[in-house]
Amino acid sequence: MIFEEVAADSVYVGGVSHGKFVRFKLEHMARTLPGPVVREWWVKAVDELIAPFVKDRGYDWEVTIDEVPADLWSIQGQIPPPFESHAEKRWVKENKVSPYGLQEKLSVGALFAPGVTLE
Amino acid sequence: MIFEEVAADSVYVGGVSHGKFVRFKLEHMARTLPGPVVREWWVKAVDELIAPFVKDRGYDWEVTIDEVPADLWSIQGQIPPPFESHAEKRWVKENKVSPYGLQEKLSVGALFAPGVTLE
Amino acid sequence: MIFEEVAADSVYVGGVSHGKFVRFKLEHMARTLPGPVVREWWVKAVDELIAPFVKDRGYDWEVTIDEVPADLWSIQGQIPPPFESHAEKRWVKENKVSPYGLQEKLSVGALFAPGVTLE
Repeated sequence: MIFEEVAADSVYVGGVSHGKFVRFKLEHMARTLPGPVVREWWVKAVDELIAPFVKDRGYDWEVTIDEVPADLWSIQGQIPPPFESHAEKRWVKENKVSPYGLQEKLSVGALFAPGVTLE
Repeated sequence: MIFEEVAADSVYVGGVSHGKFVRFKLEHMARTLPGPVVREWWVKAVDELIAPFVKDRGYDWEVTIDEVPADLWSIQGQIPPPFESHAEKRWVKENKVSPYGLQEKLSVGALFAPGVTLE
Repeated sequence: MIFEEVAADSVYVGGVSHGKFVRFKLEHMARTLPGPVVREWWVKAVDELIAPFVKDRGYDWEVTIDEVPADLWSIQGQIPPPFESHAEKRWVKENKVSPYGLQEKLSVGALFAPGVTLE
């Protein structure tokens, strides 16, 4: 998260200088929000989250969330592991970025086990 | 609209420091431009609009317009009403954000009226 | 390329202030990267390119690459010519933006020549 102070006379809303305006720009790079219900829920969840710092302090505000390509994203030189993979679980648990191999890219919910075969 | 001054030695164009360059980044969150004719027209319309402040003052410039998801956008905690809806008309007329209900989300051009039924 | 210095106490990673973090945001406006092999290759190529300035100096870092609409892009008022067109070749050779016509928008690899007709 990057906070960036902007001089009041450098922000215009509707063509008028606005000294108490906060513009939020979120980037979702890991996942996209699936379906209209979850998308609306998330927009409202974000708004509740920021309210104490913005609405409750008398600021005006606007939020946009962009969804950028997950496969064009890297941290510390590592392309993050697949959704719900073993490597993703490990990253979350260790709370840091580290290398992972093909085996760890498999889903934790994968059915492949002894006795289970692909058709 | 946010203006942001950048030191000349912090802007590079083609690998060379450039002290008279303006980079415009527009975000369309409400609507996407439909079709190649309108898209080309708009790029040129934007360019004419900024020319007196940029080209005519001897600056070099570049413009990109991004189209971010309309359903992941909120103002003052309100997800803006649908395109050409009653609520959208009211927002424009009042020039401010306010709550709206299901009824106001209908299109001003909707055919539903007494005597008109859905099949 | 725009460099923007941010105060250490204005950058948070995982909810914690981070004084040695570099955030790269690339915008691809001319072309999109076709297919998973090229996309992964490019993410890694970018990472190698920046390593001497970032990794090797002890910074942490994160990279996202966005792909914005090529047809909503202009430089010096000119919408850049098509991929692999005669105009594009000329722009690269001259290393500057200039007007071009319909003829120059054709591909350098086009088959249309005397004796070749469209069905």
